[in-house]
Amino acid sequence: MSRRRVTARELAPLVAGWKDDRTAGYAALAERLRLLVLDGRVPVHALLPSERELADALGVSRTTTAAAYRALRDAGFADAGQGAGTWTALPGAGPDPATAPFPVHSTGRAGLEDGRGDLASAAPEAPPQVPAAYAAALAELPRYLPGHGYVTAGLPALREAVASRFSGRGAPTSAEEVLVTSGAVHGLRLVLGAVLSPGDRVLVESPSYPLALDAIRAAGGRAVPVPIEDAGWDVGAFANAAHATGARVAYLMPDFHNPTGRLMDGSTRHALAGALAATGCTVVVDETTVDLDLRGPAAPAAPPPFASFGPRGAVVTLGSASKTFWGGLRIGWVRADAALVRRLTLRRAMEDLGSPLVEQLATVHLLADVEGVLTARRAALATRAAALASVVVTELPGWSAPIPPGGLFLWCRLPTASSSAFAAAARSVGVVLTPGPRFGVDGAFESRLRLPFSRPVPELEAAVARLAPVWRGLTGGLAEPDDDLLVV
Amino acid sequence: MSRRRVTARELAPLVAGWKDDRTAGYAALAERLRLLVLDGRVPVHALLPSERELADALGVSRTTTAAAYRALRDAGFADAGQGAGTWTALPGAGPDPATAPFPVHSTGRAGLEDGRGDLASAAPEAPPQVPAAYAAALAELPRYLPGHGYVTAGLPALREAVASRFSGRGAPTSAEEVLVTSGAVHGLRLVLGAVLSPGDRVLVESPSYPLALDAIRAAGGRAVPVPIEDAGWDVGAFANAAHATGARVAYLMPDFHNPTGRLMDGSTRHALAGALAATGCTVVVDETTVDLDLRGPAAPAAPPPFASFGPRGAVVTLGSASKTFWGGLRIGWVRADAALVRRLTLRRAMEDLGSPLVEQLATVHLLADVEGVLTARRAALATRAAALASVVVTELPGWSAPIPPGGLFLWCRLPTASSSAFAAAARSVGVVLTPGPRFGVDGAFESRLRLPFSRPVPELEAAVARLAPVWRGLTGGLAEPDDDLLVV
Repeated sequence: MSRRRVTARELAPLVAGWKDDRTAGYAALAERLRLLVLDGRVPVHALLPSERELADALGVSRTTTAAAYRALRDAGFADAGQGAGTWTALPGAGPDPATAPFPVHSTGRAGLEDGRGDLASAAPEAPPQVPAAYAAALAELPRYLPGHGYVTAGLPALREAVASRFSGRGAPTSAEEVLVTSGAVHGLRLVLGAVLSPGDRVLVESPSYPLALDAIRAAGGRAVPVPIEDAGWDVGAFANAAHATGARVAYLMPDFHNPTGRLMDGSTRHALAGALAATGCTVVVDETTVDLDLRGPAAPAAPPPFASFGPRGAVVTLGSASKTFWGGLRIGWVRADAALVRRLTLRRAMEDLGSPLVEQLATVHLLADVEGVLTARRAALATRAAALASVVVTELPGWSAPIPPGGLFLWCRLPTASSSAFAAAARSVGVVLTPGPRFGVDGAFESRLRLPFSRPVPELEAAVARLAPVWRGLTGGLAEPDDDLLVV
Repeated sequence: MSRRRVTARELAPLVAGWKDDRTAGYAALAERLRLLVLDGRVPVHALLPSERELADALGVSRTTTAAAYRALRDAGFADAGQGAGTWTALPGAGPDPATAPFPVHSTGRAGLEDGRGDLASAAPEAPPQVPAAYAAALAELPRYLPGHGYVTAGLPALREAVASRFSGRGAPTSAEEVLVTSGAVHGLRLVLGAVLSPGDRVLVESPSYPLALDAIRAAGGRAVPVPIEDAGWDVGAFANAAHATGARVAYLMPDFHNPTGRLMDGSTRHALAGALAATGCTVVVDETTVDLDLRGPAAPAAPPPFASFGPRGAVVTLGSASKTFWGGLRIGWVRADAALVRRLTLRRAMEDLGSPLVEQLATVHLLADVEGVLTARRAALATRAAALASVVVTELPGWSAPIPPGGLFLWCRLPTASSSAFAAAARSVGVVLTPGPRFGVDGAFESRLRLPFSRPVPELEAAVARLAPVWRGLTGGLAEPDDDLLVV
């Protein structure tokens, strides 16, 4: 088998921003490389660039890259042979698999098909309303077939439907204040591209959503983490961080935060929106999981959108059809003042000319029955969360797995700082996990692991059954990895 | 009516790269602003930022912005009032219309509906096969509904279908060498983002495709124009330009080039691919219009893909379903070596997580009958090209409008250098034109106008009938603009 080669040119953008102020250069670089191997962006058993090539590409000394490779080898994440270069590895993993798992999704199927559990991705299956929505979209399509088919800012009916949902939730919105995007991450990149300059600071919750941290880095921003794990959003801490760093932007997920599932209450929204507006910081609110309220029908109503608490123009809101409906629909939206929507539309006109018509038409139909979709989805997710939490605490001794008020994840606490080692070992039984440090700015969260409960209960139970012996093996018990393919 | 205000922050990215080495600063800035007004990216009758605000945003002196505004006013593209600031205008246009035309597409309908002719966009209506392809896609959808729906690199069946079409055309390709994108412009941006560093030179044909020039600018590249209008692609001129500038990338459209419609022959492909590979320049070939061969069934076969002439890895090919099938399908692809496809996939995983499943499934079905679609499309486009050329030379005295071998456009030659003035005047009768200078790097092509023949013949004839009195008015004849709404 010839090894996959990772060139310095490939690697350089992936490690961009690896330097931090607290860690020695080589150690920070080794840590970034370790995370890239762990989350699969650099495949296992790939040949790394030579120490000199990487040093040249990163503009550092060869001493730094040599020390980083050495640290990586010492940690079990690389191997080297005489004259054969350095290649990536996983600590405790078996011999070269014929094909390394590569978690960038290559098929539309998830779950444990092919014996591989994908617990890195968080999207549920489609609700039963999806085929009918597409069928209705097709019925309307003939009206659009004589045209050229481009709708850069979004189909007027979809912009209206999104605006009216915001208005209904307490943030009055007109269609001109809505831009249709290809999902929330796409919206975030458009917004950051428009408002951020290289070097600008961006406040983020700690932990935060890995792809958002990537997008901030890609836009040249520097993420400033503010902890929310223990006591939630501390308005004073955010305000101080904004003052101290002069942050241009804050990226927040007040509605069932990813990964913790936390919900920001109304009075905190009020105080935080005011405090951040006072510093001139634009708040980008990611509402991807806003509809996944799992607190049950007896719970108090969810607070109004964060945007309703801020002065006009100070809050930009990102939404998505991916979690409310289905990831296969690549539709999201940005709510912003009309001037920013026009700027973003011009940027998008130079990028991809807009989202597909059929997807937009289908989303209009799904939004018309959003409560029907959500009633069933919330009930199913609540059941799955409870089932996963129960099997986790039973099968993985020492773990705690509190059930969050909403969202798609258990943010588990491990008894030891072993998240990366466990994620690495889980690969050997074909389960893909996102280790805790991917959710931090600087490699924290080694005693946390995010487990999505988005898949059906049997898939979740099967995945934990595979993981249990791996955990026992890590913690000194007897590991008996099951090498049979597990098809659910 | 309150005026739309364009802020300095909005304007700055749109004029990025306005400085050139040949023109005085104020004149280059005025020229860029003029083009922005002409192609609608800055609306007519919008209030511009103050001279000082714009000077601050661009990092130039107020003398420069003041002189640029003065030049803009002198040319009729701006007005100013005592203490009221400077606002955009069109030379010879009537009073403030209630709403200025804004050519970023806001609906799926094109044509002269609402009395407005959109001759800036070039996409034809959908072929009759489109609804059946979507219906077939919906029939296959249930297989994917249990999954999360993300397919970052593209649905395997679509990557296979695209690869096999390349192979059939003479460029052997595997599915791993294909990335699905949201159209060719999106593919171009992904590729430029991966291979270009700020300041890198990019060879382009002159004239070239405006959105490609925008994408090169957005990626920090500097376009180096090489003329192709008179004698086609001069291999020596391209090789010299590559040597002289050390260009990293060449962006070429050898297959019914936009806007000229030219087709590069096989021996030129061979020589040019070899010459550019020798300089280490990566060739990005945009095949968006490759299928629109209008030379008739008796013509010799089109040459094999440019990629088949270059060494492996030296040519990256962009394709699109927009012109072959329909713009409402936002699907395109990149063909590149497998390592670059993996790099692009990782970038895309951080951007928008992939294209919608249904669109990809529908495209697979359309590709299965691509020749059926194209037989009718080519015949219709040939008829439209002939009809438009005939009415243009009859109704617009002094114009020449040669019929190209393929593509979607007549690249008309005007008897005077009046393209911008004509495009401006055409707005007053509700026809949107892209003036010649949008196709050049530095404001050339004032005696050229691109007219798409992509719409049905009655729409084309109606548009030219509207334009004819405007042209007579410009050239001294009697202008009798018809103010009635024209609905076809």
